[in-house]
Parts: sequence; C-alpha cells; structure tokens
Amino acid sequence: MSAPIIAIDAMGGDFGPHSIVPASIACLAEFPSLHLVLVGQASFLNELIARHPGVDRARLHVEHASEVIGMDDRPAQALRGKPDSSMRVALELLRDGRAQACVSAGNTGALMALSRYVLKTLPGIDRPAMVTAIPTERGHCHLLDLGANVDCSAEHLYQFAVMGAVAAEALGVARPRIALLNVGTEDIKGNQQVKLAASLLQQAEELNYIGYIEGDGLYRGEADVVVCDGFVGNILLKSSEGLAAMISARMEALFKQNLGSRLVGSLALPLLRRLQADLAPARHNGASFLGLQGIVVKSHGAAGSEGFQSAIRRALIEIHEDLPQRLHSRLEHLLL
Amino acid sequence: MSAPIIAIDAMGGDFGPHSIVPASIACLAEFPSLHLVLVGQASFLNELIARHPGVDRARLHVEHASEVIGMDDRPAQALRGKPDSSMRVALELLRDGRAQACVSAGNTGALMALSRYVLKTLPGIDRPAMVTAIPTERGHCHLLDLGANVDCSAEHLYQFAVMGAVAAEALGVARPRIALLNVGTEDIKGNQQVKLAASLLQQAEELNYIGYIEGDGLYRGEADVVVCDGFVGNILLKSSEGLAAMISARMEALFKQNLGSRLVGSLALPLLRRLQADLAPARHNGASFLGLQGIVVKSHGAAGSEGFQSAIRRALIEIHEDLPQRLHSRLEHLLL
Repeated sequence: MSAPIIAIDAMGGDFGPHSIVPASIACLAEFPSLHLVLVGQASFLNELIARHPGVDRARLHVEHASEVIGMDDRPAQALRGKPDSSMRVALELLRDGRAQACVSAGNTGALMALSRYVLKTLPGIDRPAMVTAIPTERGHCHLLDLGANVDCSAEHLYQFAVMGAVAAEALGVARPRIALLNVGTEDIKGNQQVKLAASLLQQAEELNYIGYIEGDGLYRGEADVVVCDGFVGNILLKSSEGLAAMISARMEALFKQNLGSRLVGSLALPLLRRLQADLAPARHNGASFLGLQGIVVKSHGAAGSEGFQSAIRRALIEIHEDLPQRLHSRLEHLLL
Repeated sequence: MSAPIIAIDAMGGDFGPHSIVPASIACLAEFPSLHLVLVGQASFLNELIARHPGVDRARLHVEHASEVIGMDDRPAQALRGKPDSSMRVALELLRDGRAQACVSAGNTGALMALSRYVLKTLPGIDRPAMVTAIPTERGHCHLLDLGANVDCSAEHLYQFAVMGAVAAEALGVARPRIALLNVGTEDIKGNQQVKLAASLLQQAEELNYIGYIEGDGLYRGEADVVVCDGFVGNILLKSSEGLAAMISARMEALFKQNLGSRLVGSLALPLLRRLQADLAPARHNGASFLGLQGIVVKSHGAAGSEGFQSAIRRALIEIHEDLPQRLHSRLEHLLL
C-alpha cells in the first residue's frame, strides 16, 4: 500500500488549530509513513507548526483555505456561503484523490452536508450515518446513527443496519448481531418507523437481525450493532458520557471522604479514570461517517489533542481496511 | 386528613403477588394509618396473606378481580377484552372514591390506556406522562415522558413541561428550571417537534424555561425538569440503568482483581451498590403518571418487593401533597 495521506480540517472544533496541530505532529511521529495535509489559514498554521522543532515537513503539508465554518453555522450556510472553508477544501482533497481520508472536529451538521455534497453517498444509500463503538459488559457495540439524521424513515434505519453490520464485519466481528433500539422487546412496542424497519430487517435473511433491544440490553452486550435515529443515538451517547462522568466524580468523592487512605485512593483513582475514558468513546475515539464515497472521521468538538489523535488513528484503520469499498460491495448485494 | 387508602393492582409485574403481597404488608407496618386494597384473584391473595402472621386485616382488604393483564397484552385488548382485570378494578376503586391512589407494576401501555379511560385526564391535558426523579451532579432532575407516549407533538411536549414543573414545585423545587432535551443547544438543532415546543415554551413567560439541554447537561444538573418524548426518555432511562450496572460490575471486578485486600473491598463495594441503587430510580422508586384525575404510580415491572414499597411510599406523598388538585389549579392558569 502506498503511504497514507489524510486531509485534516485544521480549523474546526472547540480548540481549533491549537489542539489539532500538536495532535497531527504527534501522529506523524507515531506513524512514520503517514502524510498529513493541514487545511486552513496557512500563515497561522505554519506559525503554529514552527513552534514544534524537528517536524518532518516533507510529510506535513499545509493547504490554504480562507474561510472557517462556525459551530453555529447552518448546513445550508456552510454549503452555499463558504466555498473556501477549511472543511470543504479538506473534503475536496479527498474527492480529488489527493488524500484517502478526511478528519474534522468541526460542526457536525455542516460536515455531513458538505460530505454528501462533495463526496456523494454510495449507491443505494440515502443518508450517511455516524457510528462509534461503545463499551458493553461483553465487549463493544457499534451504535448508529449518532446525530447526523434527527428524523429517519424505516428505510433509513434499514440502511443504517446494513452499514453498521458491514462496518462491524470489517472490524472483525463475525456475523454481527443487529438489533433495533426500542422501548420494549415485544412486537407491539415502538413507533411506526421502528416497527416498519423491523419488518424490513426480518425479510433480509442474510442479515443476523435479532430483534428489538432496550437501553439496558445494549450495555449488557446483547447486540453487536444497535440501530436508532440520530436524535435518540445522540442523546443516548451524550447522556452516557454525562452519567459516567458523574459516577466517576461521585466515586472519587466517596473514596476521598470515606476511605481516607492514600493507598486506596492511589489504587482506585487511576482505575476510575480509565473506565471514564473508556466510556466516553465519541470524545476519545471519534465517530465514522458511513455511506459516503470516501472516509470521513468526525472528532468530538470538545476533544483535546489526544482525542484528535484517536480520530486520525481511526481514519488510518479505515484506509487500511478500505472500508468504503467493502461497504460498496456488500451494499450492492443487500440493497440494490 | 383521613386515613389514606391505596388500591394495589396485586397481579402485575414480573413477580406478581409473590412480590406485591409482602411489599404491601411491609408498608402497613411502616405506616400505621395506611389502608390497602389488594385487587386480584381473591383466594390466591388471601392464601398469600395468610402466610404472614399478625397482619392487621382491618387495614388490608382484598377485592376480587377475575382477570389479569399480561405484559404482552395490547392496550386495546386490556381496554375491551378484559373488563374485570385487577388493573382496571384497582383504577375503578380510585375513580369511585374508595381509594386515593392506585399502584401497579403491570403492563405500562395498558395502565396508561386504562387510566385515561377510567380516570380521564385533567382539563387541558391530551395525554398523561410518566415522570421520575433521576440523580444528577447537583441533586435530582425530573425527567418526562418516560415511555407512555412514543410519538409526541410540540403541544404534548409543552404540556409535559408544564406538568413536570408543577410536580417539581409540589416536591419543593422553587421556580424549577425547565429544559427540552435535544441534540445540541443551538437554536438550529433538533427535529420539528422540539423546535416548535421551544417556541411555545418561550412564549409562556410564567415558566422558567431555560432552553435546550443535551444528554450530558442533564447529568450535570443544568435543569430541574427535562422534557422529551417517551421514546427518547425510555431509552435514556434504561440505558442509564444499564450503564450504571455495567460500571458497578466493572468496578467490583477491578477491585477484586487489582486491589486484593478485603479491607478495600469491604469499604468500596457497599458504596458502589448504594450508587447503583441511586442510579436506578425507576426500578427503585417507581414513576408517577401526571395529568390524570387521580394518583397513579407505576412500579417497575422487574422491581422486587423493595421497589414496590417505594412506589407505595411515592403514592402516599402524592396523596399528602394532593398532586392532582395542585396540577389542576396551575394548569387552569397555564393552559386554558
């Protein structure tokens, strides 16, 4: 395989280039064949890069883009009003074959709209979905959609199920168990979209559809791929992050208050922090857009340098697995 | 106040009378003025009661009902097909003034349909909602709806907000901060129902509406009342329970494995279990139906005897606070 090249939207996210430039430089050190193209205000980026001595500039390019998409910009604004945004130029590098993946920590809605416009979706896919792996009692579960699509039809949920299954297979899960997130496991439960999606999935004999799953079943590890609309997925993911943070804070307080001993604290607190990190996967690992003609990884807007590095690593894995091509082959069979 | 009388659907829930009879007897011992009416198969219930010596039968009545609503019965079946179900007879006791509250661990959809049919909603309320208090970093937050209504219009969400605020006030929260659960806090975020509900709430100057809240903000305690449709609320609640259980299990395993010492385990594990109980509020405390002409508390289907006792206690508080009358007075002002 030729050396991987990843286009980085260097201006997005809550911390922007101040977090993204160090993350990029750290990844170049970690992966000696990796090339990165930082897209954004060139003079500013070059100045930030210059603060790091010893950077291999042969593998770190800067591509100028004069505009920045704000976290509050509407998708339509991003599409029509900012033709030279860092996000758009990064996606165009990918479209034009000058990069094999794009990573951004910017505005999710704008990234989705621009990705669809610039890269187009795979044949048979109406809307791309966001997916990430969240920890369960038995391992991990691939949850989608995470917020790209707040309103979904049954057909969209079906497409998410197919894409989630293919992505899970690419990541090594044999015959992934697919479930629809619902308010109960009985047939009569749920809204119209979920019930219709269930009947579509039941007809697709090739898929290992196991039925409805509830919120607690998800964490018990009862499925490998859990499908829901982006409204529900986003709220599930963020509330889980919030709950994990709250539990960690309470445990820390309890240990400091009740157990006293420095020994216990020094043993328990690192465990707590590791668990908390494991439970904030979107913040730490980023989320993939599935269903596009290209690899796009969204880093969490509030992710620091460490989180952005994880998103770059995820993009590298997807390049290595050639995920869009795998999806394309399987989708041809399952959807068309 | 006269002695409180609570009608108990003794046949519902995963454990049925085997859990409900002991819970009822325990509550009679705890509250010396309380009267309970157990509704269900009389001979079976009397036999179970007879196993407990010393029960004050003057405060524990049995009302026969020949039918039982199953956990899988559709609401329409429960309404039309089972006129003598324990759930329905319990609600009729409430309607007829022979009880001041009803507690059931049965099928949620059936309980909602029967409650609306037998008791009717308060003027101005289209649909009752289920609410419970979940723990946050700063205290508690009243979350509704928890699953009674899987599809909600903006007007329904608005009504839930009003009811949640009044219930929170009745429980001692001054000027409760009301928020709508959404996938972002910016105005452009969300689906149509949520955006419309926001504009309705902005116009209601009397309400302390603070805007959108995300899943993590909920656990940070940024609002006292959080409003969403029943699909989202149910999944948030159940996934939180599942996550809390998973974290507890992992922590237990980590302590047993890494710390070894019995001392640490004996100190840490009770704290973990307390936290887990606190984080499973619906299972432990039950959920109230708001918006009916009467007090109905739903105990978790999988709740054991301890959970059912909590649901009875909650019903007692609502009787004491005369919650339906409070709601009625405030709703007249805010909705009509």
